[in-house]
Amino acid sequence: MIRFWTLSLLFFPVFSQAQTTYTAQDSVLIRSIYDEVLSNGEAHENLRVLTKTIGHRLSGSPQAFQAMKWGKELLERYGADTVFTMPVVVPSWTRGDVAVAIAYMLDGRIIPLHITALGESVGTPNNAPIRSKIIIVKKLSDLEQLDSDLIMGRIVLFNRAMDPIQINTGSAYGGAYDQRGNGATAAAKVGAHGALVRSLTHSLDTLPHTGAMSYEDDVVRIPAAAISTVDARLLAKLYKEDPDLEVELTMNCTVLPDVEQGNIIGEWTGSEFPNEIITIGGHLDSWDIGEGAHDDGAGIVHTIEVLRLLKAVGYTPKRTLRFVLFINEENGNRGGLKYAEIAAQELEQGEKIYVAAMESDAGGFSPRGFNVDATDTLTELFKSWQPLFEPYNLYHFKRGWTGVDIRPLKDLDHRPMLLGLVPEGQRYFDYHHSANDVFETVHKRELELGAATMAAMIMLIDKYIPSPNLNIENE
Amino acid sequence: MIRFWTLSLLFFPVFSQAQTTYTAQDSVLIRSIYDEVLSNGEAHENLRVLTKTIGHRLSGSPQAFQAMKWGKELLERYGADTVFTMPVVVPSWTRGDVAVAIAYMLDGRIIPLHITALGESVGTPNNAPIRSKIIIVKKLSDLEQLDSDLIMGRIVLFNRAMDPIQINTGSAYGGAYDQRGNGATAAAKVGAHGALVRSLTHSLDTLPHTGAMSYEDDVVRIPAAAISTVDARLLAKLYKEDPDLEVELTMNCTVLPDVEQGNIIGEWTGSEFPNEIITIGGHLDSWDIGEGAHDDGAGIVHTIEVLRLLKAVGYTPKRTLRFVLFINEENGNRGGLKYAEIAAQELEQGEKIYVAAMESDAGGFSPRGFNVDATDTLTELFKSWQPLFEPYNLYHFKRGWTGVDIRPLKDLDHRPMLLGLVPEGQRYFDYHHSANDVFETVHKRELELGAATMAAMIMLIDKYIPSPNLNIENE
Repeated sequence: MIRFWTLSLLFFPVFSQAQTTYTAQDSVLIRSIYDEVLSNGEAHENLRVLTKTIGHRLSGSPQAFQAMKWGKELLERYGADTVFTMPVVVPSWTRGDVAVAIAYMLDGRIIPLHITALGESVGTPNNAPIRSKIIIVKKLSDLEQLDSDLIMGRIVLFNRAMDPIQINTGSAYGGAYDQRGNGATAAAKVGAHGALVRSLTHSLDTLPHTGAMSYEDDVVRIPAAAISTVDARLLAKLYKEDPDLEVELTMNCTVLPDVEQGNIIGEWTGSEFPNEIITIGGHLDSWDIGEGAHDDGAGIVHTIEVLRLLKAVGYTPKRTLRFVLFINEENGNRGGLKYAEIAAQELEQGEKIYVAAMESDAGGFSPRGFNVDATDTLTELFKSWQPLFEPYNLYHFKRGWTGVDIRPLKDLDHRPMLLGLVPEGQRYFDYHHSANDVFETVHKRELELGAATMAAMIMLIDKYIPSPNLNIENE
Repeated sequence: MIRFWTLSLLFFPVFSQAQTTYTAQDSVLIRSIYDEVLSNGEAHENLRVLTKTIGHRLSGSPQAFQAMKWGKELLERYGADTVFTMPVVVPSWTRGDVAVAIAYMLDGRIIPLHITALGESVGTPNNAPIRSKIIIVKKLSDLEQLDSDLIMGRIVLFNRAMDPIQINTGSAYGGAYDQRGNGATAAAKVGAHGALVRSLTHSLDTLPHTGAMSYEDDVVRIPAAAISTVDARLLAKLYKEDPDLEVELTMNCTVLPDVEQGNIIGEWTGSEFPNEIITIGGHLDSWDIGEGAHDDGAGIVHTIEVLRLLKAVGYTPKRTLRFVLFINEENGNRGGLKYAEIAAQELEQGEKIYVAAMESDAGGFSPRGFNVDATDTLTELFKSWQPLFEPYNLYHFKRGWTGVDIRPLKDLDHRPMLLGLVPEGQRYFDYHHSANDVFETVHKRELELGAATMAAMIMLIDKYIPSPNLNIENE
């Protein structure tokens, strides 16, 4: 109670003094950041090394360990004062080498379907095929309307497409996500034996897109796979022709024991308020197909490039800048949760206060601005900087989703300013969680503009965010 | 003189009454346009047919005739009231089948270079190889500083890169363009026998990018080729090692007689002011490598989709909408010049007045807004509509370059409102005028958003642009 009182009374009044001001000097410094990235940017080459020499890097995998080592060395090379690993115990899961689905029609046609296991799914029992008739639904709640005798033992195809008319593809993704996240459990509750989920993408192609799913306790765990959009459409068409068609599903994915890995953190100590922390991050882990180039190799090299850029233009931060390569965003967010847990402890002990955090986890495309999640006062401060970004075609300065890894920091009592980089988003879900998320789809200049945009914004936050008066002793 | 007086006194006062107003109904209609394009868009499939069944279509070529026929049929199918061809005599040129450059080093190394002829270039004399030492310059004016004995008979490499720090890639292109457009003439004036021009792209690759060049009268016409950025860099490096290296150049491109082709025009007659013309267009011709997908297949299918969309949402235009597939933008702009010439005649004869024109010729990428070229009053009117486009992430409503095809309309005395679609621009010059400008690089939703953005803006112009009082009798 005392802690809460201290925070609420001492903190908010100070933040409310925020002024919407910046100097002409800021625009000169910002210009030098963009000049540096477009002339000497290293983010693209760093991404090439991450994606082509390490490749994909699911939590718990040897490649994730390699990526941690790579990130640590890079942060050291670019001059972080200290680089350390924050241990995080992460889940481990393997896709195995079999994920096969075949449709059998009464007329004798046999049609192989493009699928891949959803992350954390169990395999088929004993890794042997299951074969049954199917049911196709568009919504989870549709299952409740169906006769339970009908569903019993079947494989359910969740076939709701991402809504095409939403301009924001992330919103369309969010609107279709429940099929992937909770479809298997919903299907199991009504007696189904397997789940196929239409891939979460607007693209009509034969690539399955994986992603996290989870099971509810006390519900039978049935195997769940992503099916490509083309195959989902095909299966729906075949089902109209022949409602008695059967699908045979075989997968040997499996859950492995947890592994200790960690968040990689590079720290650049603040010159005036060293105990006030500004976090910049992305996530180092990726799904285990493709190369995790946009998701989230881009965010990782963005993060590291912010350090390089601010050093290159001779900036001296007032606050401590933390460059964080989070682990386990894709299937558990244990890296982000651990980071916020420690932030809360340090705050309680009067050691440090996490004043702001920025994440890049929406791809390496041309930047359009930022989403913000903050108090009204800090949101207004943030919006007041927009004119500085107009020369770089950045206009999106709005409230919105910022990032999975930094989201747990929102629950700190003092409500740090959270920012998420918003890049152009129309192509993102074409690649997301699929074999197509590879280095070749990331454009050098677009990636670089993202890094400069982040560095410029971090500089403004560092200079202008008001110091919360929380009895944190800045040495 | 009388004509000028009539226009200037009667016209401007009326246009200055423009008000910055729109209705809630407009935003509903605009939403329906975007819904239609994202649900039932046909632009992407039309582009596939244009690029994959016809392919590239240089002015004068058989493919350009095929594209004219294709465009005419499509405009008819989508319900234009009349579709006609405006005859235009266009230049004709053929690349031939030989464009070879080889570097010979004193140490015996022989290095083939990736080149292609610049459009309108002559071949090497008798299509035979020319071989000489080289000179490398960064600016045309550098040639004047050099000893003329040194340059005599040599091949000049123009090796100035597009400026990487410019955010607007079109500006960077404009800043390097003189090498391609006028390099050969500048080199010939000081006695050189050939010109190689660094490809106009930020991308470092082995693709040569062609494009228009021209010769000055009374200057010897020497062959000119684009060389890929990688090869230009390589040649500069080799030249440092061995300033006496020689390059052998062979090309058999040649100028052919002019051909009569034409602008394809679909007309949708206005319900209130049929003699007031709003032009929407792109250019049907393309360079003869690649497929002309972004340049300007995208603009062509955008234009045609605007017709389809406005019909689909049940809009009734007050003015006459003209959907124009211009010919010969790439190497002469005779289509755009002819169109403006006829517009001036019709204006003078009191038949029609061209009140506004919009062009899409900057690629099929995600739209960001429009450039405008208009009077202050009309520019303010245009800017007042920006809030209607915010739900679609469109913020760029600025003065700027609008398009080669519609530019000649600016010279009409009454100064019509000219608009150019501004898409995301970082990738455009990677593909521009190269073998990589193919259908696969155009994203369906990005293309569709461009078409809807144009249709929405055309609807606003049609509804709200003030009628100029020019004694044009609207039947």
